[in-house]
Amino acid sequence: MFSNAALQIESSFIRDILAVSQQPGMISLAGGMPASELLPWPQLQAQFGKLSQGDLQYSLTPGLPALREQVAKQLVTDCDISGDEIMITTGSQQGLDLITRTLINPGDKIIVEAPTFLGALQTFQASQADILAVPTSPEGPDMDALTHCLETNAVKFIYLQPNFQNPTGFSYTLARRQQLAELARRYNVLIVEDDPYGALRYEGEALPSLYSMVPEHCVRLVSFSKTVAPGLRLGWLQASSAIQMQLNKFKQVADLHSSSLNQQLLVAFLQSPDFDAHIQTLLNVYRQRCDAMHNALSDQLGDQVSWQKPQGGMFFWLNLHRDGNWKPLFDSAIRENVAYVPGAAFYFDKPSQQFARLSFSNVSAEQITQGIERLAQVFNEATV
Amino acid sequence: MFSNAALQIESSFIRDILAVSQQPGMISLAGGMPASELLPWPQLQAQFGKLSQGDLQYSLTPGLPALREQVAKQLVTDCDISGDEIMITTGSQQGLDLITRTLINPGDKIIVEAPTFLGALQTFQASQADILAVPTSPEGPDMDALTHCLETNAVKFIYLQPNFQNPTGFSYTLARRQQLAELARRYNVLIVEDDPYGALRYEGEALPSLYSMVPEHCVRLVSFSKTVAPGLRLGWLQASSAIQMQLNKFKQVADLHSSSLNQQLLVAFLQSPDFDAHIQTLLNVYRQRCDAMHNALSDQLGDQVSWQKPQGGMFFWLNLHRDGNWKPLFDSAIRENVAYVPGAAFYFDKPSQQFARLSFSNVSAEQITQGIERLAQVFNEATV
Repeated sequence: MFSNAALQIESSFIRDILAVSQQPGMISLAGGMPASELLPWPQLQAQFGKLSQGDLQYSLTPGLPALREQVAKQLVTDCDISGDEIMITTGSQQGLDLITRTLINPGDKIIVEAPTFLGALQTFQASQADILAVPTSPEGPDMDALTHCLETNAVKFIYLQPNFQNPTGFSYTLARRQQLAELARRYNVLIVEDDPYGALRYEGEALPSLYSMVPEHCVRLVSFSKTVAPGLRLGWLQASSAIQMQLNKFKQVADLHSSSLNQQLLVAFLQSPDFDAHIQTLLNVYRQRCDAMHNALSDQLGDQVSWQKPQGGMFFWLNLHRDGNWKPLFDSAIRENVAYVPGAAFYFDKPSQQFARLSFSNVSAEQITQGIERLAQVFNEATV
Repeated sequence: MFSNAALQIESSFIRDILAVSQQPGMISLAGGMPASELLPWPQLQAQFGKLSQGDLQYSLTPGLPALREQVAKQLVTDCDISGDEIMITTGSQQGLDLITRTLINPGDKIIVEAPTFLGALQTFQASQADILAVPTSPEGPDMDALTHCLETNAVKFIYLQPNFQNPTGFSYTLARRQQLAELARRYNVLIVEDDPYGALRYEGEALPSLYSMVPEHCVRLVSFSKTVAPGLRLGWLQASSAIQMQLNKFKQVADLHSSSLNQQLLVAFLQSPDFDAHIQTLLNVYRQRCDAMHNALSDQLGDQVSWQKPQGGMFFWLNLHRDGNWKPLFDSAIRENVAYVPGAAFYFDKPSQQFARLSFSNVSAEQITQGIERLAQVFNEATV
């Protein structure tokens, strides 16, 4: 009865974990949610006066012109683009779905990093693409593996998260970005650059997007879910006009246009001085939480796991030194009232059991410390 | 470079017409938009106090439980269902896209009415379905043609709009609904029942949905765009739990969930006494406009075109008696500052030039009269 595409998508394990992690008393280091108490509710309320009856009517498929212009002018700081290159999407998940539907026939090849964002894997499964995985590292994807993959396959696009990747928190070096731009040119291949976390940098210098380096070979996806609010379901997509034209037809099919009320609310917030202040607050709080997780891990688990402290985003990626793996520890952790995501969920094939993803964004520094203490307890009991 | 699906979708001619129809001085009988001045802005503003910071966070994929329950209890009046059978969608266009992606492989067969909703044709093109068209009539689809089609083809689903169809305004008789339910049982075929206009009935008695007759063979799509506001991008879908489970995976891929802020706003509005009063206002105003269009057509064009006065919805479907067709008249009409949609746009194949769709929902009774006068002028000039 169901389509092949439907049968290929696996339901998100993370969304299943989220149910468990909302049990009372649980300290959840599992989800990738923004801090609930920092969601800019008073600031958005202050903009309600800018909304009007007209924002309830049908509007244009690629988004409100005022919002597209504002994004191009205010939020795309590493290259000079106009609102025409911006499409407003119903969250960046929709952007990913639209570009995949626009480009992929069943059997077409997509390169992903191993590990990578689970929502992307689901989206590519839905398109019945042939998914090829190359290992990634703190510097970025393995260039030898990537080059080999491009030499031996006709690839439709490469899916990359250059900034504070989900799940690893890794951020590509400038040199690796330049190599990737050069690779895209040499092999005439498209890069889908997914960048939901780029605005959340706590240390180090901001690095240019791949889009700014090779716009003709790139589609960039950005989310407002991490910087403003997931509940608005808004994101944007940067692409050339040739790609936009095709995307526009799928956007009509998908939902005609994104909520005009929410778009108007967002443009008012972006134009207010509250926006920059809100981002500064997020950076300060997340930086403290990131430090708290780093310190708690060093104190409690420093001899058992290793990690690279992320310079931004929401995630730590813990590497378990000893034999054994994170999966059997998970049930014990849930019993100890601490939740994380076993890393195997983020691999398309050959899942590694050696890693776990921990998020620090929606828990206080105190909860982080306590959560890592509970995790250390799980480790101690497991080794008894 | 682009997927076969992308190349198959035709951009909506109606959305192209909308650009023309927004020129100053134009009386647009083209779009299918709700009355802008009746969009319930004060009523929604009155509910802002019920919103909170929590409505900005990520939420559940099938929709807010409170909204799903409220819809099942308040808005599904012809059968007894629980919130579990309801999925909240980002407009009913998304519902249509989700069910199509969940069921259709390229080459699978879908039966549609001729004419039918253009957005559905685009969605089915995107799925690369094989579209089969059967003629429709003021009583409903032609049962002989439909039966023949089911006898000679393996059909995945039949797409129907039983209430005040777009573009014809036709509404199926009770007898035809019963025949369709029986047909679904006999051929074990699914009906996708698209019902955006059912709540807008100005005359006659409400008739039961096909879903209420054969829930096990039906998925029903309903929109809040006609009764509340398109700018919220909210609709709902009724389906069995087996179908919901598959749909849920595509909903994750499409946009994770619909705007939680807008869902919360909607549930507050539905629970307020303002909602019923708002629907009554819509019915009164649209009834007057429907009458105004009927009267103006009778006065001005009664000897040149024929139509069935619709009992609800937003559309008149004009049948041109004489030789010739609506398409060459269109340019003259635009010059006379009146816009409509030539009916050929609503056919998948063998487009008939004999019909035109006129909408009365977003124009005053005075504008309707004046618009039809202008149209009569176009007719007179064409026959000189």
